[in-house]
This record gives sequence, C-alpha cells and structure tokens, in this order.
Amino acid sequence: MERHRDQELYQIRQRLLEMAGLVEEMIGSSMRSLTERDDSLAEDTIDRDREVDALEKAIDEGCMSILATQQPTAVDLRFLVAVMKIVNDLERMGDSAKNIAEAALSINREPPLKPYIDLPHMAHLARAMVHDSLDSFVQKNAALAREVWKRDDAIDALYQQLFRELLTYMIEDPKKAGRALHLLLVALYLERIADHATNVCEDVIYYVEGEDIRHEATHYGDAASEKTN
Amino acid sequence: MERHRDQELYQIRQRLLEMAGLVEEMIGSSMRSLTERDDSLAEDTIDRDREVDALEKAIDEGCMSILATQQPTAVDLRFLVAVMKIVNDLERMGDSAKNIAEAALSINREPPLKPYIDLPHMAHLARAMVHDSLDSFVQKNAALAREVWKRDDAIDALYQQLFRELLTYMIEDPKKAGRALHLLLVALYLERIADHATNVCEDVIYYVEGEDIRHEATHYGDAASEKTN
Repeated sequence: MERHRDQELYQIRQRLLEMAGLVEEMIGSSMRSLTERDDSLAEDTIDRDREVDALEKAIDEGCMSILATQQPTAVDLRFLVAVMKIVNDLERMGDSAKNIAEAALSINREPPLKPYIDLPHMAHLARAMVHDSLDSFVQKNAALAREVWKRDDAIDALYQQLFRELLTYMIEDPKKAGRALHLLLVALYLERIADHATNVCEDVIYYVEGEDIRHEATHYGDAASEKTN
Repeated sequence: MERHRDQELYQIRQRLLEMAGLVEEMIGSSMRSLTERDDSLAEDTIDRDREVDALEKAIDEGCMSILATQQPTAVDLRFLVAVMKIVNDLERMGDSAKNIAEAALSINREPPLKPYIDLPHMAHLARAMVHDSLDSFVQKNAALAREVWKRDDAIDALYQQLFRELLTYMIEDPKKAGRALHLLLVALYLERIADHATNVCEDVIYYVEGEDIRHEATHYGDAASEKTN
C-alpha cells in the first residue's frame, strides 16, 4: 500500500515535469515563431496548448484520486496541494505562450518593426525562471525558489522599458502602432509567465517549509520589491 | 465532530463570500476611480487588495487544516478543492482590479480621451459574472454556472471591438497614444476578470457534478466558443 502510493506520487511528479517541459518548449517556439516569422511554428505552438490542458486535467485527477481514496500524510498532502497549484500556473503559462504565438501571426503579416532584441532576452529570462522554479520543487530547495522569485524584478524592469519604447514608436509613426501594440502584448504575456513562475516558487517554499509566504514581501528584506500580482 | 466540521465548512464558505464581495467592490471602485477621475478612490482600491490577499491565505489555511486533520468525505473533499481553486481566481481578479486602479492613476493625469461608454459596460458584465459564478457555487447550481460561463463571449467581443477602436485613436492622433494604451490595458484586465469567472464556473460544475469540463468546449455544443484561456 505504502509502496503503491509512492509509485502514484512518483508518477504525478513525472507528469508534472513533462507538463513543465512542454510549457518551456512552447515559450521557446512561440518566440521563434515571432523572431523567425514562422507562421507554421506559431500554429504548432497554438495546437500544443491542448496537450498542456490535457496534462493539467490528468494530473489534477491523479491528485484528487489520492486525496479521496487514501489518507495522505501531512507531507504528502502538502505535496499534492502544491502540485495542484503548480499545474494551474503551468496551464496559464501555456495560455500565455499560445497568446504570444497568436500575436506572432498578426505581427508576421506586416514588415518587421525592429530587431527583436529585448523581447527574446525577456523570454529567455522568463523561461529560465519556469525551469528553475520547477527544479526547486523537485529538489525541495526553498533557497533556490527564493532566488528565482527575486528574478522577477528584472523581468518587470524590462517590461517597463519596453512599454516606454513601444509607446515612443507609436507616437513617432502611427503606421507602426498596430505592430507596436502587438509587441507590447507579447511583453505583457512574458511578464505574466514570469509572474506565474513566482507563484510556483511560493508554492515550493510552502511545500518545503510549511510556511505561507504569499504576499509577504518583507520575508525578502525589501518591501519595495513586493510582487504586485 | 460531525457538527464541528460542518461549522468549519460553513465558516470557510462565509469567508469565501466575503472575499468575493470585496473583489466585486474593487471592480466597481477601480472603474469609478477611472470614470470619475478620482485618484484617492484608486489608491483606496489598491490598498484593499491586501485584504483580498489576507483572505486568500486564511481560507487556504482553513481548507488545508481540514484536509490534514480530518478524513473529508468525497463531497467535502470536492468542496474544499473547489474553494482553494476559487480563492486563487478571486485573488487574481483582485490583482486585475488593482491594475485597473493603477492605470486610472496614469490616465487621470491627462485630459479625458473619450466618454468611457464601452469600458463601464464591459466592467458591469464582468462584475455580474463574478457575482453570479459565486452564486452558482453557493446554490450548487451547475446550470447557472454553465449560463455564466457562456457570457464570456460577449466580453471577448467587447474587448476585440475596443482594441480596434483604441488602435484607431492611436493612429489618428499620436498625442492620444499613451492614454489609449492605458485604456486598452483596462479592457484587457476586465477581460481577464471575466476569464477568471469562467474558471470559477468550471470549478462549480466539477464540484456539483464531479465532472471535469475544463478545456472541453464541445460540452457546450459549439467548438468555436471554446474559451481560449
């Protein structure tokens, strides 16, 4: 029985990692569909969101089934609840990657606006946050989770910078307004992905330490760095 | 024991309704801070988000405590998991209302762009969705949840219309670009609030019917109406 449950938990963990890997790939391919102006890659990315959705459902069901049929220990309970929260965030990251691919389809219809330097950089940082937040979960490493959580500030700063820059484009040349607007949405989706990664970090810390640190910026020493979402 | 647990579940439900009421108020006051150009109301709204965050934490802890110390029945288990998912969505709706208030502070610094006809209408629909989705939970009314779920299409249509309209503003008069962009973000936050309300509806249907209908648009007869997020 004990062993059977361990196997079930192991399987849930593996599926979670599969789902996270898929979301990471979607972030990468959605951005490539933009930078390489590749519509078919954008469509592939949009299609893959269904796989993410299916995995969310399957993992959720697995967790519910253990909760319903067994009496999980406190640690297992925290694990299961953390997993259910993390899959929820991963599913929304998948949505954001899908939204980026949809924006790429609109943007690719017109001539390129500018070399996409900042957006790929932002995407790279966001993707690394997703990867490392899941790593911190697997390693039960709250210190790593805290480190990843803090990286969101760099993403927010890049977003603010891009916002101003793209607004300038719109003002200088109204013909560019549509493209600039779509690029701004891409930045917003990346910012949201990073935001969801910080949620994962919070779930990891709760799971590892049994402590709920959401909305408590002071734990990180600096109230000004509080995540606003 | 039985009675004690019923009381705990009742208390969780009451707190959930309190949280939902607070989020509804925040949606209303963030929009009024925009239409009435009331900065202090915007700041109040931003402050109230802390209360929402605190309620999320308290409700989550209440659910975890029951899960950890009692062996909930299948129905109670579904209730507790539904509550934990719903508070998560409510917390994010609160974030969106806060974001609207922040946008209002930016927009209010400049002369009004246009009479805000569509945005308040959109906000009214979104707020009603939040209210009715919670009603469907309290009433265990899956039919109502399905009806509310479908209303998201009207919000999406309004968002698309506003997107085109505000883009036209930007193109016609670049001086208006900054304000138009912030108004577009307001529309995006409202669209997101409605999206979270559809998540609540899905949780209600699962809770009532024990059926996971997420990402299965065909349940509603029309694949084209699938929620994209």
